[in-house]
Amino acid sequence: MDFEAFFRSELDALKAEGRYRVFADLERRAGRFPRAAFHGPNGAREVTVWCSNDYLGMGQHPAVLAAMREALDACGAGAGGTRNIAGTNHYHVLLERELADLHGKEAALLFNSGYMSNWASLSTLAARIPGCVVLTDAANHASMIEGIRHSRAEKLIFAHNDAQDLRRKLQAIDPARPKLIAFESVYSMDGDIAPVAEFCDLAEEFGALTYIDEVHAVGLYGARGGGVSERDGLTHRLDLIEGTLAKSFGVMGGYVTGSAALCDFIRSFASGFIFSSSLPPALAAGALAAIRHLKTSSAEREGQQDRVRKLRGQLDRAGIPHLSNPSHIVPVMVGDAALCKRISDELLERFAIYVQPINYPTVARGTERLRITPTPLHSDEDIATLVGALSEIWSATGLQRAA
Amino acid sequence: MDFEAFFRSELDALKAEGRYRVFADLERRAGRFPRAAFHGPNGAREVTVWCSNDYLGMGQHPAVLAAMREALDACGAGAGGTRNIAGTNHYHVLLERELADLHGKEAALLFNSGYMSNWASLSTLAARIPGCVVLTDAANHASMIEGIRHSRAEKLIFAHNDAQDLRRKLQAIDPARPKLIAFESVYSMDGDIAPVAEFCDLAEEFGALTYIDEVHAVGLYGARGGGVSERDGLTHRLDLIEGTLAKSFGVMGGYVTGSAALCDFIRSFASGFIFSSSLPPALAAGALAAIRHLKTSSAEREGQQDRVRKLRGQLDRAGIPHLSNPSHIVPVMVGDAALCKRISDELLERFAIYVQPINYPTVARGTERLRITPTPLHSDEDIATLVGALSEIWSATGLQRAA
Ligand SMILES: Cc1ncc(COP(=O)(O)O)c(C=O)c1O
Ligand SMILES: Cc1ncc(COP(=O)(O)O)c(C=O)c1O
Repeated sequence: MDFEAFFRSELDALKAEGRYRVFADLERRAGRFPRAAFHGPNGAREVTVWCSNDYLGMGQHPAVLAAMREALDACGAGAGGTRNIAGTNHYHVLLERELADLHGKEAALLFNSGYMSNWASLSTLAARIPGCVVLTDAANHASMIEGIRHSRAEKLIFAHNDAQDLRRKLQAIDPARPKLIAFESVYSMDGDIAPVAEFCDLAEEFGALTYIDEVHAVGLYGARGGGVSERDGLTHRLDLIEGTLAKSFGVMGGYVTGSAALCDFIRSFASGFIFSSSLPPALAAGALAAIRHLKTSSAEREGQQDRVRKLRGQLDRAGIPHLSNPSHIVPVMVGDAALCKRISDELLERFAIYVQPINYPTVARGTERLRITPTPLHSDEDIATLVGALSEIWSATGLQRAA
Repeated sequence: MDFEAFFRSELDALKAEGRYRVFADLERRAGRFPRAAFHGPNGAREVTVWCSNDYLGMGQHPAVLAAMREALDACGAGAGGTRNIAGTNHYHVLLERELADLHGKEAALLFNSGYMSNWASLSTLAARIPGCVVLTDAANHASMIEGIRHSRAEKLIFAHNDAQDLRRKLQAIDPARPKLIAFESVYSMDGDIAPVAEFCDLAEEFGALTYIDEVHAVGLYGARGGGVSERDGLTHRLDLIEGTLAKSFGVMGGYVTGSAALCDFIRSFASGFIFSSSLPPALAAGALAAIRHLKTSSAEREGQQDRVRKLRGQLDRAGIPHLSNPSHIVPVMVGDAALCKRISDELLERFAIYVQPINYPTVARGTERLRITPTPLHSDEDIATLVGALSEIWSATGLQRAA
């Protein structure tokens, strides 16, 4: 076997399909978000980022940076081990308490990423609960899909956000078998939101465990940033709430919250938790500061919602087609991989605007898009510049306008 | 199904077996390593850490902390996205170049942890190379086992560090099938080292891809810290070298290095790489500084080896049984889970020494141990205190002395 030739031919196939990824080499600038330096072939130049998941700009918040500096000075760089072997830092303990409180749960458990919290928790629960059947939303994130796959538990995929289909699937399962329903609140690519209350009703009716991924909702929804579950008063009806520290909280890491026994169970059995060095103290300290800030301050959430409304209004006036949804995500639909990439390139080159094209497999073929994420730090001028640029490109390219 | 009752009964079973884990709540102190504050039921007190994987104390190195502070001030807290969507930072690019250079490879790819680099790379390679058979050392780390398991590729386990058994297994496979041999260099619990050259010979003979985990060797072996593969001049014969940034480099993160096509293949197809927010710029900057420092400075490596020799000599004189091995890891063998925990508790309570007991499933039952990791920062006095404490406990407990 010629391994090199095999790797190259697989990469060539991606290129031929127009879905080979080229990463934009950026240098974020604390204090100047959403501005960043873009390192291109001709050196670095300043661009405006319109596709970051640092949704509220907390990655540059003074309280977050101060907490990180303090922990760095006090405790040093890394944690020095796995959680069990020399790697539990006092900041982990404080952060887990804060996360439990954020979601009104008894306990929380930290992971090194949201990917790992989903993968490790779902694979552990589904594999270790005897005879468990997993009911999983068709649009669930890769980390959930891989966790469920890893468990080798029986899996039933229900139609996206479809409570009726979920009911049908639940009815078809032997009532004696343990069931786990896994879904997200805000789906990150379409920005639609799950019928969480209906799913909770069904879980109660059928005695199923509920697992919700609030990665794109924590910090953003609910009076204290507890997510859609807080906003809708459903926290107590969800057995496990999963989230990330890398998006609205601006740092890095993942977590689950739930009952003390549930978190202790995952803590004690999840390979991906046990056998990996833990988060640096400075990251835990930064996330702690971000969560505490967003628990009491709604200015960032309101600012974001205001920017989202403003951008949508101007896109509508310019006839730029975007998916309507009840969240903060603004998907501008293009529907073709190569075209999507070309628009993104033009935005960058001609207008110093960075929006990554989103192609298959992140979204379905034919639904390629520019996924735009307004933050409280995007100004009126930023919005006008973006919409103007899109409008110009739409005209030049002869793209269809919305009605 | 009463999920809560199920979780509790599983936890009770762990407790009954003496392998329920209680984490030591520590507060590392930059500038005072290996000292840390231990948060116990009666408040915090200072202890000496003897089981950290911050093997060289780089987690408090001034160059590392300065680089992290600088990146934090310049770029802020998090990376703001996945590598493909707004989350590639210039520090990632620089760090990947540095890692490729460290291992004499064309390219490198960063992950959020060493666990993830193993899991994602092995699962991607083994699943996507058509008909791939994985030959895996019986003692491989959980992250490798889970990655291989996830791929669902055919797997053959060869006896630990046994080239003859590997040969037998290779001979039994259809020569036309692609083969991947996965092993570690330094095994972290016994401290033994793989016969890397022999494995490379076999890989060549049978046309197999070689995958080595150097997590417990990078920074520590080789003139520039390139690991056992560098020390033994085998770098060019290993297709993929995997490592962590969380142990001797003192920060956090994982990586693989190899040919440009190999790294690009994993970059393009590994779910665990694609769908997770990337490392904060400050972590990448800190790791970069640690690697650069250890490429030219051998003082830390020599200091560690000296401390290891000294500790072993004193353990021998005191008759404390420890596993002999050619690495920096000093396993003091106890052979009983409850006793191991009791010794660890006594060390902490009476002598302010923290060494975590290592029990099943991290090591086999009957081989429970105290895994001691001397660093260049442990003083003569620290060593004398540790050996004196162990000796006292050995006498009081009537434990057997070594000959
Ligand atoms: C729905 C969802 N869950 C989990 C994750 C993974 O979280 P993290 O980026 O912290 O790994 C992501 C994206 O990154 C996501 O979109
Ligand atoms: C051999 C080996 N590989 C990989 C890992 C995982 O690396 P990380 O701690 O960076 O997740 C570990 C331990 O943590 C290990 O011992």
